[in-house]
Amino acid sequence: MRILSHEIPSAVGQTVTVAGWVHRRRRLAAVSFLILRDRSGLAQIVVKGPQEQLDSLGEETVVEVTGTVAANAQAPGGAEIVEPVITPLTEPAETPPIELWRPTVGAGLPVVLDNAPVALRHPVVRAGWEIAAAALYGFREALNGQGFTEIQTPKIVGTATESGANVFALDYFGGPAYLAQSPQFYKQQLVGVFERVFEVGPVFRAEPHDTVRHLAEYVSLDAEFGFITDHRDVLAVLRSTIAAMLAAVETRAGGALERLGVTVPEIPVDVPVVHFTEALKIAGADPEEPDLAPADERAVGEWALREHGSEFVAVEGYPMVKRPFYTHPQPSDPRWSNSFDLLFRGVELVTGGQRLHRYSEYVAALAVRGESAESPAYSSYLQAFRHGMPPHGGFAIGLERFVARLTKAENVREVTLFPRDLHRLTP
Amino acid sequence: MRILSHEIPSAVGQTVTVAGWVHRRRRLAAVSFLILRDRSGLAQIVVKGPQEQLDSLGEETVVEVTGTVAANAQAPGGAEIVEPVITPLTEPAETPPIELWRPTVGAGLPVVLDNAPVALRHPVVRAGWEIAAAALYGFREALNGQGFTEIQTPKIVGTATESGANVFALDYFGGPAYLAQSPQFYKQQLVGVFERVFEVGPVFRAEPHDTVRHLAEYVSLDAEFGFITDHRDVLAVLRSTIAAMLAAVETRAGGALERLGVTVPEIPVDVPVVHFTEALKIAGADPEEPDLAPADERAVGEWALREHGSEFVAVEGYPMVKRPFYTHPQPSDPRWSNSFDLLFRGVELVTGGQRLHRYSEYVAALAVRGESAESPAYSSYLQAFRHGMPPHGGFAIGLERFVARLTKAENVREVTLFPRDLHRLTP
Repeated sequence: MRILSHEIPSAVGQTVTVAGWVHRRRRLAAVSFLILRDRSGLAQIVVKGPQEQLDSLGEETVVEVTGTVAANAQAPGGAEIVEPVITPLTEPAETPPIELWRPTVGAGLPVVLDNAPVALRHPVVRAGWEIAAAALYGFREALNGQGFTEIQTPKIVGTATESGANVFALDYFGGPAYLAQSPQFYKQQLVGVFERVFEVGPVFRAEPHDTVRHLAEYVSLDAEFGFITDHRDVLAVLRSTIAAMLAAVETRAGGALERLGVTVPEIPVDVPVVHFTEALKIAGADPEEPDLAPADERAVGEWALREHGSEFVAVEGYPMVKRPFYTHPQPSDPRWSNSFDLLFRGVELVTGGQRLHRYSEYVAALAVRGESAESPAYSSYLQAFRHGMPPHGGFAIGLERFVARLTKAENVREVTLFPRDLHRLTP
Repeated sequence: MRILSHEIPSAVGQTVTVAGWVHRRRRLAAVSFLILRDRSGLAQIVVKGPQEQLDSLGEETVVEVTGTVAANAQAPGGAEIVEPVITPLTEPAETPPIELWRPTVGAGLPVVLDNAPVALRHPVVRAGWEIAAAALYGFREALNGQGFTEIQTPKIVGTATESGANVFALDYFGGPAYLAQSPQFYKQQLVGVFERVFEVGPVFRAEPHDTVRHLAEYVSLDAEFGFITDHRDVLAVLRSTIAAMLAAVETRAGGALERLGVTVPEIPVDVPVVHFTEALKIAGADPEEPDLAPADERAVGEWALREHGSEFVAVEGYPMVKRPFYTHPQPSDPRWSNSFDLLFRGVELVTGGQRLHRYSEYVAALAVRGESAESPAYSSYLQAFRHGMPPHGGFAIGLERFVARLTKAENVREVTLFPRDLHRLTP
């Protein structure tokens, strides 16, 4: 019966079996050490006597080790395995392209990405995804606890709806089809069915720019729900969701945080909110600007930290002209919208808001853009609205971007398992 | 403060606010009833006096109702709302293409699918996905509890790896790419990183046949894990996972089961297992047959129910020639494989098994098929094996097929939100 390496310290004096990868071999004059890596951490195994077997077990070879646990203050966790019987479970491994046993990653990002199947084994590289997996757990836990229904919507769609640009086209049984850029239309339709829905799934953007922030395929965490008063209700659910994600990262990926040397921020119960017009003033920007420049966002972030002690701040009321057609206007002044960006450390983390919910509003909003509600691109989507939809809204969190911000990764690819971009389609 | 319809019976004598869709209006001589539908069920609202407002609120209009809760044994849950103030939250809804208030669905499947955004609101149509969502919850809960890490792997891939057939091709920044037919290769690679992984996500098959069982896009529930002895370890994890899925369906989608008139089956702690050669004998089939025909599967299902009182039975040892190249052979006789199908009520539900784990085995297995381990289709995948992989295996559950079997749906499309097939790309 195999135990995990982190269970070794509580088995002193017992005979145990562990299994994992040869992480590192260290030869001293009288003795050698085999450091074994499994999913829970590292184990130290003391090899005395003939060294031939150890010589044959290159790093990354998978082995099973049975031996006796002995206390040793210098070993990881204060215990090690002595008098081991080592059984290889595979043929000897080839030397990895990256030295996985070094505490820091000795290779540049392109080498890491080219060799992802092996590079991801490095405890520091792996940490990014451990945090992502924990965040996914927290996201679902928060929304399941609030009566949301999980949905899974099609990724192959018949029309390039949300925006004709940056969409991947494919051959669908001889006809045209596209990869969904977001589940926006579907999640809204399903508010009409389940009231409160969430989806975790891939979205696709044929992003023609090669930046540290963009991927051609990423994981979108979407939520949408009905019977709201306005976008402030959406912000409240977003706050509790992010709080749950951060808590899950702390409890489920504590080791990964430690390896990366980062801590989880606090999100206040009342996230500070400023109107877009106020944000421009705080940033000292031209009051006619239709959007916040990166420097403006940083200034607003600094303001929130200074005035409210918060690393999070929401900017609401973005100009309608910069928001998608389904955005609900601010009732008191329709130049502005009932939508918001949530900034974290001065950078946009999540976009959300209230949507239009009356069919006549959609007809008008599309007409302004010279489009027809009867067009095949919208007719199915808008069927839900012809037959009664409640006031609703929602938000979308980009998983990789969320983790990159949290871990202060410079490039979103550092925390993506197998990134896809303009130049990368493998591994 | 809104309450849900299922909370009404515990608020007798109080003034409450509910909100939802006008499910049905019923006019009697002296009084009318408004049946309101929300995500928790139906509520009865008694309207006395002038009927003009009720006349204007067509079915599916979204309204908010404030009134007093009164006990009435004839009302749903034994309580109703009297003296209501009704406030429409949308413009009056157009008459739906399907009568959503009827207890059974009065339209054929094509009409239901064409009008999915509205048809899914029918409590019986919606039930299928409620069960699916509960099954997803149980799947993750089971695997999270056993130390699995959730992964999300790319759906755009550079090579049509698993099988060149039935793959969707797309234009990837001017070059060729494909939609992933399964996360098989990625989940195996990531066993080398996390040991135990699962993924819930879309998979794509350009299935040229129009059948009641096939979709061009479906949700695959994948698991893969290392340090196993053989496929029996995989079957044990699969059993506990299905048990958790069934339990979650029962506790989280009990209402949906009731609406569909189905019950959740028992999966025994020890699922009966027969070898492929035995299964042929049970079915009275030619011992040289390389596969089980549908009639053979039914015969094995009947045998398991008769001999073991189980609706589930696993058939192990399928001929290697019928399994993918990464399948591990049966050590005692390499004509057979360490893989299995799990049958439910005489139909295949899940395929799983042990995989090859040595690089040299992959080189040989591909050579037999006239392929090279050095080809771009395999080189990244096999890098994981060159650098040490443990004995491992896994399984994949098709979500829609699982729910269809459970609900005895004749067509998998009945339990899919927005199906994609040879002829259907919308809604």
